[in-house]
Amino acid sequence: MDLKKLFSPASIAIVGVSHDEKKVGSLVARNLLLQGYKGEVYYINKTGGTIKEKKVYLSLAEIKKNVDLVIFAVPGDVTISLIKDMKTVKAHHAVIYAAGFKETGKEGFRLEKKLIDEAKAQGVTFLGPNCIGYVNTKDAVNTTFLKYPASKGNIGFVSQSGALGSMLVDVFLGHINLGFSYFISIGNKTMLDEADILEYLLQDTETKVIGMYLEDIHNPEKLKEILRNNPSQKPIIVLKSGRTSIGSRAAVSHTGGLIGDDDVYSAFFSQCNIIRADTIDEFITILSLYSFGRIPLSRSILVLSNAGGAGVLLTDELIKNNLELITVSEATKNKIIRSFGASKKVTINNPIDILGDASAFDYKEVIDMTLTEKDVGAIVVLLTPQANTEIKETAEVIQKAQSHFDRPIYPIFMGDVSVAESVAFFEKNTMVSFTSIGYFSSALRKIRKQQEYGTNVSRDKRAEWVEKKELDRVIGLLRKQTEAHEVFKNEQKIGKLLSLYEMKDFVPLDDSMKIMELAGISSVPLVKFSTKNEIQIKESSLLYPVVAKIISDSITHKTEVKGVITHIHNSQELETAFTSLSERGSKGCFVQKQIDGHEIFIGVKRDAQFGVVAVAGLGGIFAELLQDVCYLIHPFTIEEFEYTVRHTKIKKLEEGFRGKAPLNLKYIYEPLVILCSIMETFPQIKSIDVNPLLIQEKSSSVIDGRIVFV
Amino acid sequence: MDLKKLFSPASIAIVGVSHDEKKVGSLVARNLLLQGYKGEVYYINKTGGTIKEKKVYLSLAEIKKNVDLVIFAVPGDVTISLIKDMKTVKAHHAVIYAAGFKETGKEGFRLEKKLIDEAKAQGVTFLGPNCIGYVNTKDAVNTTFLKYPASKGNIGFVSQSGALGSMLVDVFLGHINLGFSYFISIGNKTMLDEADILEYLLQDTETKVIGMYLEDIHNPEKLKEILRNNPSQKPIIVLKSGRTSIGSRAAVSHTGGLIGDDDVYSAFFSQCNIIRADTIDEFITILSLYSFGRIPLSRSILVLSNAGGAGVLLTDELIKNNLELITVSEATKNKIIRSFGASKKVTINNPIDILGDASAFDYKEVIDMTLTEKDVGAIVVLLTPQANTEIKETAEVIQKAQSHFDRPIYPIFMGDVSVAESVAFFEKNTMVSFTSIGYFSSALRKIRKQQEYGTNVSRDKRAEWVEKKELDRVIGLLRKQTEAHEVFKNEQKIGKLLSLYEMKDFVPLDDSMKIMELAGISSVPLVKFSTKNEIQIKESSLLYPVVAKIISDSITHKTEVKGVITHIHNSQELETAFTSLSERGSKGCFVQKQIDGHEIFIGVKRDAQFGVVAVAGLGGIFAELLQDVCYLIHPFTIEEFEYTVRHTKIKKLEEGFRGKAPLNLKYIYEPLVILCSIMETFPQIKSIDVNPLLIQEKSSSVIDGRIVFV
Repeated sequence: MDLKKLFSPASIAIVGVSHDEKKVGSLVARNLLLQGYKGEVYYINKTGGTIKEKKVYLSLAEIKKNVDLVIFAVPGDVTISLIKDMKTVKAHHAVIYAAGFKETGKEGFRLEKKLIDEAKAQGVTFLGPNCIGYVNTKDAVNTTFLKYPASKGNIGFVSQSGALGSMLVDVFLGHINLGFSYFISIGNKTMLDEADILEYLLQDTETKVIGMYLEDIHNPEKLKEILRNNPSQKPIIVLKSGRTSIGSRAAVSHTGGLIGDDDVYSAFFSQCNIIRADTIDEFITILSLYSFGRIPLSRSILVLSNAGGAGVLLTDELIKNNLELITVSEATKNKIIRSFGASKKVTINNPIDILGDASAFDYKEVIDMTLTEKDVGAIVVLLTPQANTEIKETAEVIQKAQSHFDRPIYPIFMGDVSVAESVAFFEKNTMVSFTSIGYFSSALRKIRKQQEYGTNVSRDKRAEWVEKKELDRVIGLLRKQTEAHEVFKNEQKIGKLLSLYEMKDFVPLDDSMKIMELAGISSVPLVKFSTKNEIQIKESSLLYPVVAKIISDSITHKTEVKGVITHIHNSQELETAFTSLSERGSKGCFVQKQIDGHEIFIGVKRDAQFGVVAVAGLGGIFAELLQDVCYLIHPFTIEEFEYTVRHTKIKKLEEGFRGKAPLNLKYIYEPLVILCSIMETFPQIKSIDVNPLLIQEKSSSVIDGRIVFV
Repeated sequence: MDLKKLFSPASIAIVGVSHDEKKVGSLVARNLLLQGYKGEVYYINKTGGTIKEKKVYLSLAEIKKNVDLVIFAVPGDVTISLIKDMKTVKAHHAVIYAAGFKETGKEGFRLEKKLIDEAKAQGVTFLGPNCIGYVNTKDAVNTTFLKYPASKGNIGFVSQSGALGSMLVDVFLGHINLGFSYFISIGNKTMLDEADILEYLLQDTETKVIGMYLEDIHNPEKLKEILRNNPSQKPIIVLKSGRTSIGSRAAVSHTGGLIGDDDVYSAFFSQCNIIRADTIDEFITILSLYSFGRIPLSRSILVLSNAGGAGVLLTDELIKNNLELITVSEATKNKIIRSFGASKKVTINNPIDILGDASAFDYKEVIDMTLTEKDVGAIVVLLTPQANTEIKETAEVIQKAQSHFDRPIYPIFMGDVSVAESVAFFEKNTMVSFTSIGYFSSALRKIRKQQEYGTNVSRDKRAEWVEKKELDRVIGLLRKQTEAHEVFKNEQKIGKLLSLYEMKDFVPLDDSMKIMELAGISSVPLVKFSTKNEIQIKESSLLYPVVAKIISDSITHKTEVKGVITHIHNSQELETAFTSLSERGSKGCFVQKQIDGHEIFIGVKRDAQFGVVAVAGLGGIFAELLQDVCYLIHPFTIEEFEYTVRHTKIKKLEEGFRGKAPLNLKYIYEPLVILCSIMETFPQIKSIDVNPLLIQEKSSSVIDGRIVFV
C-alpha cells in the first residue's frame, strides 16, 4: 500500500478550522506551524473569511489546486458528506478525527460502515476515525491536536490510544535525543490497521525501532504476512493491554475490538519475535535502549560500583532476569589490585566495588582495565552520590570510554537532584542512563531474548520454513508408512467417524483415540467390556497390569469421579473394578494396558482470531493444579516449540528427573503438529485434549483424549 | 537502651576536623552548620589553632566541659587510642566512621574486637564503625559527611549501607514534604544493630514509618523481642539485598555479615509483619504512601480516567496484584450518565472513562459523585495530558476533594514536562501522586497485606500467644492421651533411639518413623522383611495392597533408583518386588500398607541464624519438580501457618480437588509443630523430612521420613 502522500504530503487542507483556538481544527493548524511544516496548508470552513490573516476557503472545491492530504476536523456525519469533495483537489488520503463510530455501539457501527463505503466509492484511504492524527518529524508534518509538537528521533510509534501517544510525546519532551520518526494514532483502524502502519515503518529509513500500543490485533494473518515479507531485523516492541479478564472487559468497552485470550496474544508476539513489554515504564526503557542503539552483545554483564549495597541489589535483579555476572580474568584482577594499592580494599568480584570514596580517576582506571575483557556483553557503572563523589567528572570519564568501546556502557547514577545534570549529559552524547535500578534488568532480558530468538528461530528461517510447506513435509515424514492415497483414505475414515457423533458435543474416548491413530498418532489400545462375563472370555488378550476406565457421555475429568482404576493385576481385580465403575453409572468399561513414562498434557483449540492454538504442559491429574502450560499458534517449527516449552516444568523432565529417562521433546512436538493438522482439515472440531500423552524413551502414545465439536 | 544523648546531643566534639574541606571531619562540621544545629560544637585536632575563626582544641581533655557526643573522624587505630579520653568530657556516646574493621577480613576482625573491648572498658556506646553517621532532623543534628543536609519529615531510615542513605537523601531533596525524622547509618553494627535502632524509632514520636536497608540481621531473637514489647502498629518496610545466591556472595564480601537462606529471611519478615520491598523503587513508593498517611482502607479500588488505554493498563496491574476494582452503584451510575448527558459517551464500568476531552469540571463532577460510594477503599484519578486537558485545574479539583474525603485519592498524572507542576502541587498539599503506573499497584498490595495481617495475625495476638506458651499447650493437646510423665518417658526413648545412630549421618526409615510416633505423629506401620522366606510367614499380618521400599544406608530419593514399588496385591508380587529391590542393593525390604489421600511434604531444618525453620508444600515425587513450598520460623500460630501455606498450591487442595475431599490444614499444622518441638528438644538433629505426609479426611500419617544429624 502506498502511503507516501498520506504521511509525507506536499500540501494539506484542514476542513473545520475555526476562530476558537481550542477547537481541534485550530489546534492542528497551530501544530503544523509549530512543528515547522514547509508545505502548502489550506483552511476550510463554511463561514469563509480569514483566520490569522490566512484565507479560509468555503469548500475544498474552491481551492482549485491539487492537495495531497485532507484533514477532517468536523463531526462524523459531516465528514461522510464531504468525502466526495476530495476529488475536486485530486486528494486520495484523509485523516478523520471524529468519534461516535463503532466504539459507541450498534448505531456507530452502521455509521462506520457508511464511512468506509463512501471512502471506497471515492477511492480514498483514511487514517481513523476516532484518532488524534499523526506526526512525521522528518518532514515536520504534525496533524495531531496535542499540546506540544513532538520531538524528533528514530522511534516509530503506532498507538490504538491517542492518550498513550500524548503521554509519550510528553515524556520524550523531558529527554534529549529521544523522539519520534513517526507517531501514528490509528483510532478505530477502519481502513489502516497496525499491520499497514507496521509495513510502512519497517521500510522507513528514519525509523530504527518500532513501538506499538495495542488493545487487539485487527488481522493476525496480515501482520504475520507483512513480517514474513520484511525480513528486516528492526526491533518491534508492543504494549498490549487487557492481560487480565477484567482488564479485557474494559478494553472491549473502549474500542469495541474483539479481545482474544491474552496467553494466545503472548504466543503470537513471541512467534513473531515481537517483544511484549509488561508495563509502560518497561516499554519506554526498551524503546530508549534500541533508540540509542545500546544493545548488550550477550547476557554477560560486568558491574562496577562505588556502593556495595546498591551493587548487590542490582545483582539480585540481573540474576532474577536470567542475566549472568561475569568475573574478570586473573590478569585484570591483578592489574586492578596493583593500581589501587594495598591501602584501598576494593572487592574484585562481580560487582567490582571501588568503595564510597571512589574518584572519577578511580572509575576511569577500573573502566579502562575492564574494557579489555573479552566476554563482556555490557558494562554497568553504578554511582551513588556520596560526600566526595565526582559526579560530573565520572560522567565524562564514562562517555569517553564509551566513545571507543563497541559494547554498551550503562551508567546508573542513583538519586535525583545531584545526578540530573549527568543524565542530560549522557543523553546529549546519545547514551542511555538510569537514576534507579528500576526496569533496566527486565528490559535487558527481553532485548537479549529478542536477539537470541532472532538467531535461533529467525523470521527469515521461519518464512523459508513456511514457504517450503515444511510442516506438510514433517507430517508426511511422521506418516512415512502411508502413501499419499492412504493418507487420503484415512482422512475419509476420520470424516466418517466424526460424522457419527455430529449431533453430540464430543467424540467418545475409543473413537477419539481411533481418529488420532488414523491421523498418525500412536495410542495404547483400548478393549471395551460391555458385561462382566466378557472379562473371562477376553482376558487372554490382556497383559496385566491394566487400567479400567468409566464409559460415560458426560464426564470430563475421569479421576474426579474415581472413574479410572489403576494397577489391576488379575481378572478378579478387574471384575471388582467393573462393578465399582458400574455403580458410578458406567456402561461397561474400557480396559487398557498400564504403562510407565512421562505424563504430558497436549491439546489444540480453535481461536476466533488466531486460528489453531496448541498447548503443552505437565500432564496427569496435576495438569490443572499446576496450570503450567505454554501456547503456540499453528504452524510452528520444532525450534519454536523447543524454545517455548522450555519455559514450563517440562524442561526439568528433559534433563532427566527422579529415575526416569530424559524426555525427548520431539515426541511431544510430533503428535502436537498432527493434532494441529487434524484441526486444519476438520473445521467441525473445536478442540482436542490429550491427557496424558505418555512419553517413553523412543516413542509417545495417547493414553486418554477427547475430540470436542464446535 | 537509652540513646538520647547519642541521637539528641546538647553538645558535640568532632575529633579530626581539618583545614582540608574535603576531609570527613570538615564535612561533618559543615553539615552540622547547614542542618542548623543549635548545640555546642567543639573542634579537635592535633595541630590546634583555629578553623574558620573557631578554636581548635588539641585534645578532648582540653575542652574541660561536658560533651554528650564525640565524633571520631580519624583512622581506626587512632580512634581506639582516643576512646579513653572521652571520660575527660564525661561523654559515653560516639560515632565512629573509620573503615578497615571486620569488613576487610581477619586482621580487621581483630581490630574490631579491640575497639569493642576498649569501648566496653570505658563505658562507651558507639555507632559504627564503617558508617557515615546519622541525621536527626528535629534537633537539626547532622553527623554525616554527605553532600547535602537531609530533608525533614516523618520517615525513620536505618541503613546498613551509607551509599543507600546518600541516595535516599538525594531523592527526597527532589520532593516536597517528604523527608527523614532520622537517617541512621549503622555500618558494621558492632555495638548498635538494626534492632537497637528500631527500638529507638518505634518509640520516637516524630517517626511515622520506618524503613530499613539490610544485608543481614544481626540478632533475629532480639529483633523479635523488641517487636513483641512494642505492640505499636508503626509500619516497617525493609529492603534486603542478597536475594539470589550470587547476590548473596557479593553481600558477604561487602559487610562480612552472615547471610542466611533468603527464603528464611522472607519468612522472618512476614511473621514479624514487616513489609519486604522487592526493589528500591518499590521501597520508596511504600515509604511515601505511609509517610503521607495515604493508606487504602480496603482492596477495593475505583479508577477514573480520561484515557481508556491507560485505564486498562492500570486495571491489569491492579488485578495482577490481587486488588479489586469495584463497580459503582446503579444510582451513582445513573447520576453520572444524567450529568454528562447523551452527547458524551462515558463508560461507567470500572475504570470510569470520561474521555480525552474531559475538563477539570468533568473530573470534579465524577469525583464528587463517586465519593458517596460506600465500599471504596481508595480512588485513583488517571490523567493523560491531551490537547485541552486542564492539568492544573484538575489537580486543584482533586486536592479539594481529598480535603474532605476520609479515604485516599491517588492522582496518576502520566507524562513528564506537562505534569511536573502538578506533582509539586500535590506534594505541597501532602498528597502522593505518580507520573506513571510504575510501582503503585505492588506497593498497594503490600500495604494491604500488612494491614490485613495486622488484623488477623497481629503482633499483639502473637505476643500474647508466645507469652502464654500456647505452643506447649497445642503440643500438649495433640498428645492428650499421654500424661506429663509419659511425655518425659517418650522423650527418653527418643534420646536412646537417636544415640544408636550418633556415628551415622541419619536415622534409618523405621526408627525415624518410630521417633515421630513417640513424639505424637501417627504413621503407617512398617514391616521389615530380611529374607524372602519371611514373606510366607509374616504375610497374614499384611493388608494388601502394599508398598515395598528399599533398605539402604545412602539413598535420599527412593523413587530415583526405583526403590519404591507400589500397588503390590499378593505374596507373589511381593516376592518379585523383594527380588527386584535386592538387585538394587537393598538389604531386605520394608513393607507398608498402601493408602490413599493428599500427599504433602513437610520438613524442619536448623538455621544458623533463625533457629528452627519449618517447610510445607505439595508432596510426593513432585515436591522437587515444583519447588512450591512455604517457610515459617518456629514458633508460629495456626493462623500464621494458614495465611502462609495458602500462598502455595496446597490452597487448591484445601478447596477440594479432583475427587478428593477438601484438605484440612490442621492436619498439616499439627505434625509440623511436633517436628519443631523435636528439633527444640534434640539439638543433635539438623533436619527432619517427611515426604509424603498423607492427609485423609480426619487424620494425617507419615508414609516416609528421615531424621538427619548435624
